[in-house]
Amino acid sequence: VEQGSPKLDNLLHPSSIAIIGASADPTSKGYDYLKGIMEFDFGGELYPVNPKGGEILGLKAYPSVKDIPGTIDYVISCIPAQPTIELIEDCAIKGAKVLQLFAAGFSETGEEEGRKLEEELVQKAQKRGIRVIGPNCIGVHYPKGGLAFARAKFSKRSGPVGCLVQSGGHAWTLVSNGSLRGISFSKVISFGNACDLNESDFLECLANDPETEVITAYVEGIKNGPRFINAAKKAAQAKPVIMFKGGRTEAGRRATVSHTGALAGQDLIWDALFHQARVIRVYSLDELIDTVLPFIYFPEIKSPNVGIVGAGGGASVQAADECESKGLLVPPLPPELRHRLKEFTPLVGSSLGNPVDTVEIWNPQHFIRTLELVATWDGIDLLIAHAVIEIAAQWQGQSVLDGIIDALLTTAKGLSKPMAVVLQSFGTPRGLNMLYSIQKRFVQAGIPVYPTVARAANAMSKFIEYHNRSKDD
Amino acid sequence: VEQGSPKLDNLLHPSSIAIIGASADPTSKGYDYLKGIMEFDFGGELYPVNPKGGEILGLKAYPSVKDIPGTIDYVISCIPAQPTIELIEDCAIKGAKVLQLFAAGFSETGEEEGRKLEEELVQKAQKRGIRVIGPNCIGVHYPKGGLAFARAKFSKRSGPVGCLVQSGGHAWTLVSNGSLRGISFSKVISFGNACDLNESDFLECLANDPETEVITAYVEGIKNGPRFINAAKKAAQAKPVIMFKGGRTEAGRRATVSHTGALAGQDLIWDALFHQARVIRVYSLDELIDTVLPFIYFPEIKSPNVGIVGAGGGASVQAADECESKGLLVPPLPPELRHRLKEFTPLVGSSLGNPVDTVEIWNPQHFIRTLELVATWDGIDLLIAHAVIEIAAQWQGQSVLDGIIDALLTTAKGLSKPMAVVLQSFGTPRGLNMLYSIQKRFVQAGIPVYPTVARAANAMSKFIEYHNRSKDD
Repeated sequence: VEQGSPKLDNLLHPSSIAIIGASADPTSKGYDYLKGIMEFDFGGELYPVNPKGGEILGLKAYPSVKDIPGTIDYVISCIPAQPTIELIEDCAIKGAKVLQLFAAGFSETGEEEGRKLEEELVQKAQKRGIRVIGPNCIGVHYPKGGLAFARAKFSKRSGPVGCLVQSGGHAWTLVSNGSLRGISFSKVISFGNACDLNESDFLECLANDPETEVITAYVEGIKNGPRFINAAKKAAQAKPVIMFKGGRTEAGRRATVSHTGALAGQDLIWDALFHQARVIRVYSLDELIDTVLPFIYFPEIKSPNVGIVGAGGGASVQAADECESKGLLVPPLPPELRHRLKEFTPLVGSSLGNPVDTVEIWNPQHFIRTLELVATWDGIDLLIAHAVIEIAAQWQGQSVLDGIIDALLTTAKGLSKPMAVVLQSFGTPRGLNMLYSIQKRFVQAGIPVYPTVARAANAMSKFIEYHNRSKDD
Repeated sequence: VEQGSPKLDNLLHPSSIAIIGASADPTSKGYDYLKGIMEFDFGGELYPVNPKGGEILGLKAYPSVKDIPGTIDYVISCIPAQPTIELIEDCAIKGAKVLQLFAAGFSETGEEEGRKLEEELVQKAQKRGIRVIGPNCIGVHYPKGGLAFARAKFSKRSGPVGCLVQSGGHAWTLVSNGSLRGISFSKVISFGNACDLNESDFLECLANDPETEVITAYVEGIKNGPRFINAAKKAAQAKPVIMFKGGRTEAGRRATVSHTGALAGQDLIWDALFHQARVIRVYSLDELIDTVLPFIYFPEIKSPNVGIVGAGGGASVQAADECESKGLLVPPLPPELRHRLKEFTPLVGSSLGNPVDTVEIWNPQHFIRTLELVATWDGIDLLIAHAVIEIAAQWQGQSVLDGIIDALLTTAKGLSKPMAVVLQSFGTPRGLNMLYSIQKRFVQAGIPVYPTVARAANAMSKFIEYHNRSKDD
């Protein structure tokens, strides 16, 4: 039995939070949750609960929920499965609206005992009108609202991307990796077993959330297919929805928290349903992050013509192949443009094609001028600038590479077409560290960075395909 | 007109090398070639040629080729295109067998001038019986024979992998990146425009080369299709041939050095021809490196059943999905094995499936015991051990992660099934540096490491498919 869909606003703006199992032991989960929320400047009352009482991180700790003065809106439980259930009555007495459960050992075990425990949990919570997030989840990352994953030291920066994510590990990876790639989040909601609040609830909530401009999702089991698809359809009418469904093969399905009887063959049906709902489907967390980037950084693009500048030789051939095989087009430069490039570069012949093979023009002024000229050509809709770190640094020299990066950062915003940057490294420590710091500068300038042309092209292609479907398709 | 196929042995074992354009200026190509070959301990006579004469890197420099005493077997030219042609007569007089040309500006420009220059080069060289490698190439990496790419500081270690590679950038990337991944090379031959010695020559040579056990190739244009396919067929009967063909799309083809009139649509024909020839086709340099690894580290595997141990949660679901969608199978563990795992781990339910979700058992003894038990099960043919660096380090603790890596390295060789390791990082500097040093330890122990399960699964799948085709298929 599903309870009605709640307003996310009510649930995620508590005036008070109790943390059950809070502890002064810095290796404990209770410490981490308390510390995380304090570091995110939660504005309401914060009540550590620990049988020993005393003081934790400067706050008075209460031996039990009952001992807390006043009401509690939101309860974060870090204690094991069984005792959690005994909490519910006390939470209800204190007026709790939400119970967020870290504990595993419920239905995700696939065993009778866990299933029964979860049933009992849901029944008791429903009876007392408490909504449950989890169990088997790491909770909510909501920097603006002061909610944090345990142990996270993530950026407090708030942004346009919302996420509902069934796996705690994926939630963690998404925020960590996404931040490095330039994504800031409105809310990331990890919901584990979805025993009460489920993927449809969170999808509806994010669809209506004014702080969320792009919805992303990682889902494994889906409790109510028709409701979910309906929610997805509505959400996708309001904003882009990018979805990664885990368990698309027989073995993947067995590994999910849901363990439903659904067959892997049904994946084709999900494909069709996602397409109908105008949901952008991705197949890994990396691809999800890749695909978000144009949605937050680029204007609408409807044509798939890309101009590629950089790299050289086989890397340029591979770049062209990867773009076209992902559905983009890499049109040859027209004679007048080739002529203009020839005026100031030593480029000849196919180096003046598209990709513009810049092995010969690793010179900041020439590189930028080339990029600007290609950008002004109306035959292309977007740009990819492409460098292999170690080759550029070793063949052209560190100072030339630095000069090009500086020049790119200065001119990028003035280019007449949106640009993505592809930075590749051989994987040497020097290359990786350079890549990290160069990527950081581009990300701070609002320019998406990809590790391969194939991944950039894939994301751009999905972005352009999205804009070519009308909302009523 | 093609000259006959030479014996690689004769060409690549010169007793003397002249370097045209050798220089004491460390930013010049001539310096780099000379230095590279000296560092690779070339055992024969080395003659720097520079109009100024004098001494370069401790060696007497000769104003011209004619001034060199005695004969020259192998000439490396680092001077521009036009004057190179004027060299040929002098080289011939000195008995040169091979002329290796770094210079670009020939037919790869796609312009009349370059085409004519290349024609002239070939005619003159043929007339005097000199074989040409290039132009527009970085030459040969042959650590055992003392031949080196310009400016390379690559490992001197010799190994079983041979490569013919049309792009200098890709040649460089392959040796650099491949070395980090644990690949050592017999010979890597960069051949650029292939004006004389071409892809078919080098393929035939590597097929007959006793130092080469696995052949890899990056080719763009193919001069003589039937001869090449015939060479590929013969080579693949002798040893595995892994081939990456650039220019599979219209735009990719335009970017190649060949600029033939071939249509991108012909890519399907190449697909069929490669399949017939039992050539393993790959689509990027990363995929080429990935695919080499099982061929050099693993025994023959004919069944695609994989046991996955590590990671946890969504990452395990994704791992299972990625394996099965690449054609591997991830069979569920049988009850007796689950029972034995339960005896010493807190794992329950689906965590005991396959993947074995080890979030609960990040403990070196338990992890290794789990891996050993899964390895002994005859339902699987290979293992994947899987960790997300930052999650492991932050959730389980650095010392636990270190302990597991140590234990893995100790036990890996004793496992009854071959194992690949997947190490993922969020991309934080700490994660990347840890990943680099952990990867290094595995590579030194002869265990292949991949950055994603999808890439590991793809390589394994191609490896297994190869072993399921008889040589006469």
